[in-house]
Parts: sequence; C-alpha cells; structure tokens
Amino acid sequence: MADAPYKLILLRHGESEWNEKNLFTGWVDVNLTAKGEKEATRGGELLKDAGLLPDVVHTSLQKRAIRTAQLSLESADRLWIPVHRSWRLNERHYGALQGKDKAQTLAEFGEEQFMLWRRSYDTPPPALDRDAEYSQFEDPRYATLPPELRPQTECLKDVVVRMLPYWFDGIVPDLLTGKTVLVAAHGNSLRALVKHLDGVSDEDIAGLNIPTGIPLAYELDADFKPVKAGGTYLDPDAAKAAIEAVKNQGKKK
Amino acid sequence: MADAPYKLILLRHGESEWNEKNLFTGWVDVNLTAKGEKEATRGGELLKDAGLLPDVVHTSLQKRAIRTAQLSLESADRLWIPVHRSWRLNERHYGALQGKDKAQTLAEFGEEQFMLWRRSYDTPPPALDRDAEYSQFEDPRYATLPPELRPQTECLKDVVVRMLPYWFDGIVPDLLTGKTVLVAAHGNSLRALVKHLDGVSDEDIAGLNIPTGIPLAYELDADFKPVKAGGTYLDPDAAKAAIEAVKNQGKKK
Repeated sequence: MADAPYKLILLRHGESEWNEKNLFTGWVDVNLTAKGEKEATRGGELLKDAGLLPDVVHTSLQKRAIRTAQLSLESADRLWIPVHRSWRLNERHYGALQGKDKAQTLAEFGEEQFMLWRRSYDTPPPALDRDAEYSQFEDPRYATLPPELRPQTECLKDVVVRMLPYWFDGIVPDLLTGKTVLVAAHGNSLRALVKHLDGVSDEDIAGLNIPTGIPLAYELDADFKPVKAGGTYLDPDAAKAAIEAVKNQGKKK
Repeated sequence: MADAPYKLILLRHGESEWNEKNLFTGWVDVNLTAKGEKEATRGGELLKDAGLLPDVVHTSLQKRAIRTAQLSLESADRLWIPVHRSWRLNERHYGALQGKDKAQTLAEFGEEQFMLWRRSYDTPPPALDRDAEYSQFEDPRYATLPPELRPQTECLKDVVVRMLPYWFDGIVPDLLTGKTVLVAAHGNSLRALVKHLDGVSDEDIAGLNIPTGIPLAYELDADFKPVKAGGTYLDPDAAKAAIEAVKNQGKKK
C-alpha cells in the first residue's frame, strides 16, 4: 500500500467514575468504572479480531487512559509493546467546571452558556484557582512542567495547540518507522487530533464526538493525511449508537 | 545523603499460573494468579507507606512482570510515570525444562541433577527446540532481536551477561538523574542484578532467593554500590517467611 503506509489507532478511554456521575472531569484523575474496564478489554478484542496489532502505545498521564491502554493491550496480547506518556495527550482542562454536575451547570447557566463552554472552539470556562479542590496544579506528575504550561482552563483550541507538538515530535516518528501506533487518550485530546488529521473546521468540530472504547483506525498517506476521511471504527454500529448517546450527555437528569 | 544518592527498588512479580502449578516457566508468558495480583497491589501499598515513590519503571517483556508493575503502581498512585521495557530483564530461559512439572523433573532426574539445573551458576538445562511447544523463539516481541540473541536455554551466568548491558545503559542513566527507579522483573533476572550489586560470589548466589511481591529497596552510593549489603525489604518478616518457602519449592508434591 504505497499510498497508505501508516497505521494509527485512536482509543478513547472507557467510562470513568465521573462519566457515570455526569460530572465535568478534565484533569481530575478519576478511575474507570467496571463498565469502562469492560469497554477497554473489548477494545483490545476488536484490535485482535481485526489483526490490527499496535507496535507502540502513547497515553496521557491520566489513569483512565493509561488503564484503558493496559486493559486493551492485555486482551490483544500486546502488553509488552513500548509505552510512552505525555501530559499533552491529557483531557481538556475544564477550568472552574471541574467537579461540577453537568445537569446542574446546565440548569444554572442555561443552554447557550453551557454549550459554549462544552463545544465552542475558542471559549474556555473560567480558570480554576491553583489551590482549588479539583485543581491538579501541584500534582507531582506535572512538577517538571514550568507553571505557565500547566493549564487552569482550556478551550479546544488550547488543546490543539498543546497537543500538536506531541503529535509531530512523539507520534509521527513512530509512524515513520512503520509501526502501528495506538493512542489511548480522551474525548477532547482525540477530537483535537482528528481535527488536525481530517482538517475539520473550527465550526464543524463542535458536532464531532468520539465514542469510548471503540478503536478508530486511520490509514495515513505519505503526507500523514487520512486515506479515508474520519477513519474507520472497528465496531461501526456500536460507534454510531454511542455517538448519539454522547450528544445527549449534557441533558441527562 | 551525599553517600547514598541513588534509590533503586527491585520487585519480583507475584505468583503466576505456573508458579501455582509448580511448572518451570522461564520465557513462557503466563499470567498472574489472583493471589499474584494481590501481592502486586500490596507491593505498591508498601511503596506508598514507605514514601518510596518510583519516578520511572523498568520491566521485562513478560506479562507477569508487566502486570505486577501496573498493579503496584496503581496502588501507589504512580501509574503515570514513564515506562521502559527490555527482554534483558526477562526471566531465565529454562530450556527444555519449560512447561515441565518441577516435582516430576526432580523424581525423573534425581536431586543432584535437579539442583544443578536450578541453582548452579553455569550449567544450563538442555536447549529447547526453536519450534517446541513452549518455545518463544518466534514470538513477535523478540522479532527485532537477531536469532543469536534469542536464547534456547540459559544458566544464571547467561542471565548476568545479557542483563548487565541493560543495567548500565538503561537503568543507571535514570538513577544518575536522581530518579527513584523501580525494576519489576523475575526471580533470576533480579538475582543476577543483586549478584552484581552486592558482589555475591558464583557459589553464594545459589543460596540467594528473592521473594515475590515484596519491594527490595537499595540505596546506592556514588559508585552504585549498596550502602547496606542485600538492601532492605519493605516487609522484612514476610520476606523472611517467603524466602524459606521458595527454598522448599522444588520439593512440593
């Protein structure tokens, strides 16, 4: 396949404890639920069934993505592949919304403001104080970052800006050596990457959701452009159903 | 502590499916038992309680060590640290004994031959055919190694020879940067490392056993020599009891 030499797989973490509770999570390091663990294991089975076996994995520094990678690689019998992690693959920092109930926030601020924070490309929520309950500003895993790199809130545009250096410097070199690369990350860091890969506009990215636990496979050409726009979910029916569910997430009681 | 600038933690994987069945395992990639998972989790709790938090982890390419690292780091809340893996940290290749019952082997070959294979420094068991049932010669995880590096049997001396390059090139550089380093590996790859660190003689290493799941902490001086010979187990009583049990392992019915 001279036209599609590179293989990339994106995997959003399975359900987390705060997905289940319908809270804004962002950089808070919550664990997977039992359902999320099953999703991750199933993700690895889909990889194995498709014969799409990762040679290397990249994760965020957050437990829900790390454990999703571990569980999916275990079920794909690829636990032994090299692992790389970066804060640049972390979920979007949700600012002062972190720890807040999504339905309550919707009721308190109204749908317009709510959707602006959730889905506008360049409007971040209010910043979270460094010493707030759900701030990770002093977390040891970010201690090697200068303070100005540690976010206190982010919009999707901010995520694109801080994620892309890792794409170019951390992931593309692995693709260049012919490795099948798995990226286990988050709804918004993966939306940021898909926006870049597929050239999605600032407006259209608002409507793009990535379901949890279903590997999204891309074949990339020599210019690292997708052979098929949007890639291919390894379980298309489940992906379609899940995308609908994510769209309605904020409206849960 | 100018005399002990470096912190190293050795962790032998918890009980595996073949430990439980009393089979020679070597390079066969068996999983942890439920007991082994608990040992790994407890190992991480011991690290956390001691305030000895790893900054980086090195593992073999084998599932039982990788999962021990994952479970212990999860309970120590350090899942996010950088991970490195090498075949050079693998268990000793047990040659033609792989997959054989230890008690049956003892009965078949007698105690002298049995102990020679298990504990002599430089007598390997017979080589395992490349295409034998329990050979890992063609396993994809070793595909990047030239065939002459893929063992078909090993004595402990062979393990020392193939492990040491990773100690010098992979682990020491992390220690030099001041990181607390966790090495999650196997009975014999860790005996090989302890032999080097403590300068144990070829004769005395035969009597040295490392228990599963109990972190063994070393402080190393500027020459990478242990400040205290033999290091310190984080649960000394459990370590003592387990060392006795390992000594009697071959004699199980």
